[in-house]
Amino acid sequence: MTELFVRTLREDPADAEVPSHRWLVRAGYIRRTAPGIYSWLPLGYRVLRKVEAIVREEMDAMGAQEVHLPALLPREPYEATNRWTEYGPNLFRLKDRRGNDMLLGPTHEEIFALVVKDLCSSYKDLPLSLYQIQTKYRDEARPRAGILRGREFVMKDSYSFDLDDSGLQKSYDAHRDAYIKIFNRLGLQYEIVSAMSGAMGGSASEEFLGIAENGEDTFVRSPGGYAANVEAVRIPPAEPLPYDDLPAAHVEDTPDTPTIETLVAVANERVPRPDRPWQASDTLKNVVLMITEPDGKTRYPLVIGIPGDREVDAKRLEAQLEPAAAEPFGEADFAAHPGLVKGYIGPGALGEQSATKIKYLVDPRVGVGTRWVTGADQPGKHVFDLVCGRDFTPDGTIDVADIREGDPSPDCSGPLHLARGIELGHIFQLGKKYAEALGLQVLDQNGKLTTVTMGSYGIGVSRAVAAVAENTSDEKGLAWPPEIAPYRVHIVAAGKGTEIAEYAHELATRLDEAGIEVLLDDRNVSPGVKFADSEILGMPTIVVVGRGLADGLIEVRDRRTGERSDIAVADALPHLLALIREGSAADLLV
Amino acid sequence: MTELFVRTLREDPADAEVPSHRWLVRAGYIRRTAPGIYSWLPLGYRVLRKVEAIVREEMDAMGAQEVHLPALLPREPYEATNRWTEYGPNLFRLKDRRGNDMLLGPTHEEIFALVVKDLCSSYKDLPLSLYQIQTKYRDEARPRAGILRGREFVMKDSYSFDLDDSGLQKSYDAHRDAYIKIFNRLGLQYEIVSAMSGAMGGSASEEFLGIAENGEDTFVRSPGGYAANVEAVRIPPAEPLPYDDLPAAHVEDTPDTPTIETLVAVANERVPRPDRPWQASDTLKNVVLMITEPDGKTRYPLVIGIPGDREVDAKRLEAQLEPAAAEPFGEADFAAHPGLVKGYIGPGALGEQSATKIKYLVDPRVGVGTRWVTGADQPGKHVFDLVCGRDFTPDGTIDVADIREGDPSPDCSGPLHLARGIELGHIFQLGKKYAEALGLQVLDQNGKLTTVTMGSYGIGVSRAVAAVAENTSDEKGLAWPPEIAPYRVHIVAAGKGTEIAEYAHELATRLDEAGIEVLLDDRNVSPGVKFADSEILGMPTIVVVGRGLADGLIEVRDRRTGERSDIAVADALPHLLALIREGSAADLLV
Repeated sequence: MTELFVRTLREDPADAEVPSHRWLVRAGYIRRTAPGIYSWLPLGYRVLRKVEAIVREEMDAMGAQEVHLPALLPREPYEATNRWTEYGPNLFRLKDRRGNDMLLGPTHEEIFALVVKDLCSSYKDLPLSLYQIQTKYRDEARPRAGILRGREFVMKDSYSFDLDDSGLQKSYDAHRDAYIKIFNRLGLQYEIVSAMSGAMGGSASEEFLGIAENGEDTFVRSPGGYAANVEAVRIPPAEPLPYDDLPAAHVEDTPDTPTIETLVAVANERVPRPDRPWQASDTLKNVVLMITEPDGKTRYPLVIGIPGDREVDAKRLEAQLEPAAAEPFGEADFAAHPGLVKGYIGPGALGEQSATKIKYLVDPRVGVGTRWVTGADQPGKHVFDLVCGRDFTPDGTIDVADIREGDPSPDCSGPLHLARGIELGHIFQLGKKYAEALGLQVLDQNGKLTTVTMGSYGIGVSRAVAAVAENTSDEKGLAWPPEIAPYRVHIVAAGKGTEIAEYAHELATRLDEAGIEVLLDDRNVSPGVKFADSEILGMPTIVVVGRGLADGLIEVRDRRTGERSDIAVADALPHLLALIREGSAADLLV
Repeated sequence: MTELFVRTLREDPADAEVPSHRWLVRAGYIRRTAPGIYSWLPLGYRVLRKVEAIVREEMDAMGAQEVHLPALLPREPYEATNRWTEYGPNLFRLKDRRGNDMLLGPTHEEIFALVVKDLCSSYKDLPLSLYQIQTKYRDEARPRAGILRGREFVMKDSYSFDLDDSGLQKSYDAHRDAYIKIFNRLGLQYEIVSAMSGAMGGSASEEFLGIAENGEDTFVRSPGGYAANVEAVRIPPAEPLPYDDLPAAHVEDTPDTPTIETLVAVANERVPRPDRPWQASDTLKNVVLMITEPDGKTRYPLVIGIPGDREVDAKRLEAQLEPAAAEPFGEADFAAHPGLVKGYIGPGALGEQSATKIKYLVDPRVGVGTRWVTGADQPGKHVFDLVCGRDFTPDGTIDVADIREGDPSPDCSGPLHLARGIELGHIFQLGKKYAEALGLQVLDQNGKLTTVTMGSYGIGVSRAVAAVAENTSDEKGLAWPPEIAPYRVHIVAAGKGTEIAEYAHELATRLDEAGIEVLLDDRNVSPGVKFADSEILGMPTIVVVGRGLADGLIEVRDRRTGERSDIAVADALPHLLALIREGSAADLLV
């Protein structure tokens, strides 16, 4: 510790919102260099490299081959797949000294496809899985939580190349199995959930979400085993209902009702429903958005109709619209569209067939035969008993309403349970999208050129460090699992005597000789400071060499459980080696 | 080989000028992704990682601590040291989505200084050496020779932090020793030479130049042990000579003499020298340049006077002017400076005190009392017996004339010998330049704030791969030293029998179990193709399992020496293990 480049902080950094960020900074594992861009200090880099080593071992074991492609890339391949544009402001773009457009790679499907195109020509060259562990770049709108969502980060990305769908499925399954092994070795709690493929394209994808209350992703689980990122949950379309017996639509005065709550109150007062009071779910809320295509120029309004008791979920919306982006409809937008009466917008003014020609999509719950209280396109008026399929016909459906705890599961097995998670990995069956765009073909068994089908698989390596810290840190600091701890044992020389210092040093040397990574706190500071630091730094086993030494005893502490026991100096080395090699401290403490 | 992602090429790539580039591409170790930007394929990446491992071991052994700083960096720290500007077009610059200026790190003095400033506050925190192995970016004007000079490359950069000069000297020496160990382990032939610090600043620097005829750097050695990059060779200033007895200067008609050759010829014809013919070294050539400061805006002319038998060396000039850049003086520039008579420019029109106010620097050989034939600032006329210090006074000296084989060494030990080399490493005593610019201070033993003194040390890790290939490849392909070969043994199953395939596979398995990295050529191609590929790929030991197997024999070939010997199948494993573990193939072949 007298030589180690580390400095612990007594206070939380001002910008740290989550435990992993707070403790990694306080323990001197990382430091911020710019927003979303971090420096790895010695202890942090040791953890990162150990995580990398686990990833590498499991990728090698599944037969993937390691390569290393550039991070600074030419525009052209990303132009061919349209991602140069679709990535929008998330892509770091730059020009070189000759004025050529370049980018910092956010993910490498294009470049891998090209290198495989260069080297492979026959079905005999397939199947093929390649991977790299590399620094990636995404200009996140909201970098947050330290290394959980950074703009520069380390990723393991791999790509599979197969002749056909069954080959792709095998490669996908092999990656899935390897990911399970990796996250198990990291000691992470996670769920494998159905996911959106988003800008990546392709047919199927799953995410590995590390279960964490501070996770950015929300996912659902059903009693029957269905699990999905909320972005990917699809509400089944409503069955058409008969509407012949429903009353005709009628417009009513409902002054001062710009919100659903005010509308329900006024409706119950002025147009009471005979059987039961009106409730928010009887109303149809029309949310107006301005859509911008990734070219940044094409802009148009979109109205989304959802039951009044639901909200549009920003992430589900983003996932559905990607690569286009949505913004709230501003005052200037309303002024430019006088057909939209703010607060009283109804289906009458909407749809590509209407006078406004504004696209109108509705929640899947708004099926044929459902009846609604909704805007009448006049200030202070709403229309009642407006029936979908009779009185209005939307342009289509869009599934972006929020998902709630207890909502029925799409697998019909019962209510959905919601939880939050950190995206640790994402596996995609891409299909032929990239291979087609870049002309990646091989000769098949019949000598015919056939387009290769691809998979793409990512693990956030630096993010995994944060995810483990998020799961394992406690109110005292970090608490690493042994396999990725920077050091396995932290020896605290607590007390002033030369004997203490000498024995601590000797024990450290002995453990080191036995191949155990040891951190020795040999600083000339108080035992209290040393104890606090040992808890912040989080090595799995803390050995205290202190006053007990006079009685031939040292203390062994398990950082995670807090259990302590005194052991005899005479047994110290075999005891510690047994503890480290054979099991947890708890097993061995008497 | 049936699974390995590799493809050898029968033809040299069109853009490959040097052997390392040619063979690394032909053997499928690397592929070009963009100019100066390469992808590392599996075999190449194995070599790169082995070189990295050697560098890491030796850096750790000398007590440096590994960290990992970002490659994408904010402008401000580089603004503080002026390198944002001084790097000129070599720096990749970009803006993030919020319009902030960023850069891709070419080297990290600033960021290391800041992180040390963040963590260290006392002399007790020093000495400190930190390093990283990281991808670096420089937008080279002329990326060339594959990975020898790329725009994205892997570098080990380290930085030392000390309280005073003697500490810096110790850190510098420790790095120097570690570099010697690293390059020795890589089996490289190199020379440690004095170097220019250039844009890096600082007081002293040395380069490790890998001796290679295709190297970009030229260096000199003297019989007495002086060694320097030609950029750093300093000609001793001429001693002043008495000039009282010299004849007065006189202008002569010398029509049609725009060059030194024509001038010498005409002078010998029209103004013969009594004692001996005029020669080029009697003339003073004035070379006009247009200088541009790194801001890209400030431009001014500079004239350099050198003996007519010498040329201005472009790299020595660049090194002296850095960070400013020089271009030839164009027609438009001459038109803008009518005081300069093209082809007949003399000292009379030059100097900051002259009418033209153009800065005039001369070669150190142009000392007080030297007499010259030089331009008379009139078309067709030269001035003879113009004496420096009597008839003209330059604004100063500049040491940029070319250095030639046989020139006297500055250490007076005899003639200089020239050779070419590849810059493998560069070590700098930076001093306080960066620490001052960024406010890096610590409390010294007396509690006084003192500015830290820094060293900076770099190894081109990816370049080292090319340098080894440059040194070891031959007319058949690559030929790796064992410590960094992708695989130690290459087994060629040469022939069709199942027995051959089975035995080759068994031997590979046995070696693998013994911890030896083996590449097995199990492809269904002709023995000729396999032999050629084994020579291109360059593993140190090639084992041929072929027709001899019927007689219980296999053949062992040393890739580098070409020596072959048959060994008995019964002895194969112990023989190979002994060969690999104990020495070169040559030692063991009978």
